[in-house]
Amino acid sequence: MTNLLGPLAGAGRVAPHLGGAAWIRALLDVEGALARAAAAEGLVTAAEADAAVRAVEDLEVDPAELAEASVAGGNPVIPLVTRLRAACDSPAVHIGATSQDVMDTALVLLVRRAAPTILDDLRGAADAAAALAAAHRDTPMIARTLGQQATPTTFGLVAAGWCAGLDAARGELAARVEALPVQLGGAAGTLAGSSPGVADTLAALLGLAPQGVPWHTERTRIGTLAAALGVAAGACAKPATDVVLLSATEVGEVAEGAPGGSSAMPHKRNPIAAITARAAAGRAPGLVATLLAAMAHEHQRAAGPWHTEWPALTDLMIATGGAADRLRTSLEGLRVFPDTMARTLGDRSDAGHAAALVDRVLAGR
Amino acid sequence: MTNLLGPLAGAGRVAPHLGGAAWIRALLDVEGALARAAAAEGLVTAAEADAAVRAVEDLEVDPAELAEASVAGGNPVIPLVTRLRAACDSPAVHIGATSQDVMDTALVLLVRRAAPTILDDLRGAADAAAALAAAHRDTPMIARTLGQQATPTTFGLVAAGWCAGLDAARGELAARVEALPVQLGGAAGTLAGSSPGVADTLAALLGLAPQGVPWHTERTRIGTLAAALGVAAGACAKPATDVVLLSATEVGEVAEGAPGGSSAMPHKRNPIAAITARAAAGRAPGLVATLLAAMAHEHQRAAGPWHTEWPALTDLMIATGGAADRLRTSLEGLRVFPDTMARTLGDRSDAGHAAALVDRVLAGR
Amino acid sequence: MTNLLGPLAGAGRVAPHLGGAAWIRALLDVEGALARAAAAEGLVTAAEADAAVRAVEDLEVDPAELAEASVAGGNPVIPLVTRLRAACDSPAVHIGATSQDVMDTALVLLVRRAAPTILDDLRGAADAAAALAAAHRDTPMIARTLGQQATPTTFGLVAAGWCAGLDAARGELAARVEALPVQLGGAAGTLAGSSPGVADTLAALLGLAPQGVPWHTERTRIGTLAAALGVAAGACAKPATDVVLLSATEVGEVAEGAPGGSSAMPHKRNPIAAITARAAAGRAPGLVATLLAAMAHEHQRAAGPWHTEWPALTDLMIATGGAADRLRTSLEGLRVFPDTMARTLGDRSDAGHAAALVDRVLAGR
Amino acid sequence: MTNLLGPLAGAGRVAPHLGGAAWIRALLDVEGALARAAAAEGLVTAAEADAAVRAVEDLEVDPAELAEASVAGGNPVIPLVTRLRAACDSPAVHIGATSQDVMDTALVLLVRRAAPTILDDLRGAADAAAALAAAHRDTPMIARTLGQQATPTTFGLVAAGWCAGLDAARGELAARVEALPVQLGGAAGTLAGSSPGVADTLAALLGLAPQGVPWHTERTRIGTLAAALGVAAGACAKPATDVVLLSATEVGEVAEGAPGGSSAMPHKRNPIAAITARAAAGRAPGLVATLLAAMAHEHQRAAGPWHTEWPALTDLMIATGGAADRLRTSLEGLRVFPDTMARTLGDRSDAGHAAALVDRVLAGR
Repeated sequence: MTNLLGPLAGAGRVAPHLGGAAWIRALLDVEGALARAAAAEGLVTAAEADAAVRAVEDLEVDPAELAEASVAGGNPVIPLVTRLRAACDSPAVHIGATSQDVMDTALVLLVRRAAPTILDDLRGAADAAAALAAAHRDTPMIARTLGQQATPTTFGLVAAGWCAGLDAARGELAARVEALPVQLGGAAGTLAGSSPGVADTLAALLGLAPQGVPWHTERTRIGTLAAALGVAAGACAKPATDVVLLSATEVGEVAEGAPGGSSAMPHKRNPIAAITARAAAGRAPGLVATLLAAMAHEHQRAAGPWHTEWPALTDLMIATGGAADRLRTSLEGLRVFPDTMARTLGDRSDAGHAAALVDRVLAGR
Repeated sequence: MTNLLGPLAGAGRVAPHLGGAAWIRALLDVEGALARAAAAEGLVTAAEADAAVRAVEDLEVDPAELAEASVAGGNPVIPLVTRLRAACDSPAVHIGATSQDVMDTALVLLVRRAAPTILDDLRGAADAAAALAAAHRDTPMIARTLGQQATPTTFGLVAAGWCAGLDAARGELAARVEALPVQLGGAAGTLAGSSPGVADTLAALLGLAPQGVPWHTERTRIGTLAAALGVAAGACAKPATDVVLLSATEVGEVAEGAPGGSSAMPHKRNPIAAITARAAAGRAPGLVATLLAAMAHEHQRAAGPWHTEWPALTDLMIATGGAADRLRTSLEGLRVFPDTMARTLGDRSDAGHAAALVDRVLAGR
Repeated sequence: MTNLLGPLAGAGRVAPHLGGAAWIRALLDVEGALARAAAAEGLVTAAEADAAVRAVEDLEVDPAELAEASVAGGNPVIPLVTRLRAACDSPAVHIGATSQDVMDTALVLLVRRAAPTILDDLRGAADAAAALAAAHRDTPMIARTLGQQATPTTFGLVAAGWCAGLDAARGELAARVEALPVQLGGAAGTLAGSSPGVADTLAALLGLAPQGVPWHTERTRIGTLAAALGVAAGACAKPATDVVLLSATEVGEVAEGAPGGSSAMPHKRNPIAAITARAAAGRAPGLVATLLAAMAHEHQRAAGPWHTEWPALTDLMIATGGAADRLRTSLEGLRVFPDTMARTLGDRSDAGHAAALVDRVLAGR
Repeated sequence: MTNLLGPLAGAGRVAPHLGGAAWIRALLDVEGALARAAAAEGLVTAAEADAAVRAVEDLEVDPAELAEASVAGGNPVIPLVTRLRAACDSPAVHIGATSQDVMDTALVLLVRRAAPTILDDLRGAADAAAALAAAHRDTPMIARTLGQQATPTTFGLVAAGWCAGLDAARGELAARVEALPVQLGGAAGTLAGSSPGVADTLAALLGLAPQGVPWHTERTRIGTLAAALGVAAGACAKPATDVVLLSATEVGEVAEGAPGGSSAMPHKRNPIAAITARAAAGRAPGLVATLLAAMAHEHQRAAGPWHTEWPALTDLMIATGGAADRLRTSLEGLRVFPDTMARTLGDRSDAGHAAALVDRVLAGR
């Protein structure tokens, strides 16, 4: 099913990292690496691991069929492991693991694979804001507070504020993504049938952080990641909102480079990149709430909250990624009209320490 | 992109009504009906309308291409109308309409087309609960309050409570869906270039409620629909939670007909339908919040909140529909163990007016 | 503890109906009416009921002490009943009831007592919008879509849209409030130790709807009420947002009657009533999500979700009531500047059927 | 108005730091320190600063009156400054500041003053969990996954998981609180009429982090703080949920030290501290969503989103603080029943590396 409305909300680049094919690849990557890790730690022989890895590599998965087969047990790992074991009777298949180990680690892989796109767009948007701040360090304009014209500022300081928020949010998000660990605990989270060493080797093979202890039902990492994505969406919404307002016909102090038309009014100059950045960002707070509300994973595997995380977290990545993508387009093409700003400002002057504050933001990057 | 994790969360039947192909069909249905309505009201000739309708019928749309073409203007109607006008220069194409008219009406069509599946599953779940209530009208069990055994009730009354909630939520949702009107206002929502008559005829042709006045930025209907979906999800979460708890090994008073196994513990008897009903329902509150927060459509077309509605509302339909689908499966196959209930209850008795209350619920359906 | 920031967000009138003293009064009202209902249905003698009612009337409650005494059992009914029983050994005290019966019914009383204020402000705001619509039925102005000037409309139609949304939301909310029933089920929700007749009499004495069956863990009514409050907040946010934007210095088409100044810029003309209406409305979506997420009351009394409802629902009443209060102030004092509108519009004309649409809204009230 | 239901949800200790009196004290603290900072940086004389500080110290504020006086301008700083200037005509009063400077810095002070209570309770709860983990390092019990008994674990590992989540959440929250800076930007956020030096001195005087640049409309810090509070609430909800489930009559593996009774069933042993911890935590996700949705502060002062932060952030502090307080009580008094655990477990054994994982958590504290 094509997501007709994804690209217009900036999902074009990030969504493929988070869809069905990406899930299947990640699940198989985990199963393959698990067999190798078990061999490295001496739980199985190299030959047994090789057999399992070959089975993983050779497995042909029909996504729609796997989706249907996932219904009975409530996750795709169960039928995937059934197929792997049918293809190969090596004890290395799924050794010492439970479904949640594979789902959680695969989710972490998805996040790690999708995050560079989001971080790149956040950086691109911040760089564009920084360039605007530098170019308009001394471009005076009126500040507006509570919707009313107030006293002077500069467009450079406005753009520097956008940059500061985007940089802060990106740094935060990058740190959260980087810290995401492997998950391996086995049926009860005790590493019975496996070992801390296998878990650490699995992490190393997949390029993930070690887990310390299994986090099956200790979901602060998921909550914190969700929060960072929500904050990043908010950091995108601020400049997008400003662009929409500053582009208003009556204000006219900026315009997007490629404003959109309308089916009824082709002459319109809608700041459509900023508008759709706002639209994408608007999805984030509710998704963060969903993920925070799902943090109470009862006992040793949650009967619902765990499963809720999958669509909520991938949707949140798409929402934040979409906001960053569209905002970057908006800011990279932004046209600024100092003459209009000056006309609005009239003879008001004194932008205080605006220029020094711009310098401070740019020097701090 | 296959939604690998949709079917396990109950989306198998409802999602196709809400995806890219469904959107395109609905958009074209609106454009076709609009041409006919304009002819019926004398704005264009029958021949002009026929030409437009033929263009609509003959249009071949590549969904991925249309998705990309939607980016520039922020919605798919703009490129769709461009294609229609390229194929046919009839003035009946998109007459008197703006993008939002077509998007809003198409969204209403999607809801109307997806809702029967959701309502059917809500009814199926309620019917299953009612059958359980009737069958176990006099089956005593212990009530549990704040997690502790309290005083006697009957399983019939428990199931009757499930039924009552599901019936109430379904009735509410059905009324909201039924009330959804057509949207036609033109560029500014004034029906310039069109007329109230065209709007009413368009509604009649599409089987929708008349609009009274355009509701471009008066979104109480969207908010109320979202709320009804959220309440329905909550009404599903209640019995699903009870099934999970009553199925606990230590309680064992019910079991699903087809419990799920585990990749590590094939002997497990997980109440997976109820678990995934909970998972699906868990997505709803955040999506409702998103839609309520998006109600403040500024001026005569909102620069962001409007676009946020599309994924949020369709995701919410999928979440609630999924919860209903999975709960229905859980309840239709539910096995009840009166002996276990009796053993737990011991010599405690007096279930008060439980039987009469069951009768009251069943009589009120 | 004074709520310093309540009145500025419109809580001045509604909050007293929802605070500690209101809770205590409602709890005692329920206990008193319960004793009378039990006597009316023959469960106790008139003398026993009279003794209980006198105890209720004579009870002196120190709110802070009761709050502390509520910690041990998790609700104030337990210590309240202890005090009543210490004062009076009549069997009519708390007869056949459990804490949740009294808390739920008291919560319903609170809602019923606070709602008229909210509904009155929603009506006042709608009436003000209707008066603006009538006065400016033919006042042309430019419509703005996606932040850009589009084609003509009238201010009358804009205000009529505000009115339509407020009327719809008010009607919905009033119906929800009206439908809220009494709660009486006893320890397990079976009416053991009581009877349907007592419940119905209790409802009649308190002026509430009958319950049909106890709804201890069937929370669709709470969810639906929350949703109606959330939609009403959204219906307030729309005109408030428009007032803020139309009051912008560059637009200047409306102004509040008593705009606010600033501590740094006393000359400012901030549309502060609309601003704080937006602020209050902004709290609602998250609170609705909280209440919807709390709908899954497990077993026969929920260990957490039930308790969450108390602050969430009363806060939501305050948020929506505050938005309505502040919006009413904004709209009742709104100054409209047709000359500015005309200047902005220039020689653009044709507001389509705007006048007829205004008439339709006003006639439909 | 007494908050009757606050203490039972754990708000007793934290709420006083966040109420009206605390706000007034913080606002005055900011005004006083601002005068001193201005003198230190040479903007006013020492005598002028002294006069302003005396006015601040001598000001008698009637909270209810101030609340009413805040309505006209939408915040309490405006009438507060009016009163200060009436008492003292020193130019040091409110020098170079705008209302938002004082409100934001006061909000930061409130957070800093309330946070130690929350952090202390989070640490107390974590310490209690750690003590349970150490005491029951080798106490075998059955793990439960998806509600079903699975394979063995130890109670020590369960408690260690609680500890790990609480420690992670506390560390995160402490860092966020510590990083909160002063706010000083003046009317347009340019430090016109002030200087970066004054801002830094103000921060030092109040014991807050320096701001770098004003963050009037760059709200990542608020979003990130909210997120950390939301994650901490989730980290409390997990052990609270486990306590409720493990206390269930049928499980009986733990019990609270002071379980609650019931108004109808005095024999009940409800784990009321854990129940109300869940209740408090359940408020957090929606409040986080509110604060994230409010991040898009338009222009140089937001017309609504800024004002929304005040109740949402203080309510969130109370919710998370309440959850931590009640969880601490639950865990500090928790009784564990190894015999029951052993009976349930039967002859199942092999808790894998549970003991080593407990050691790893405890060593990592």
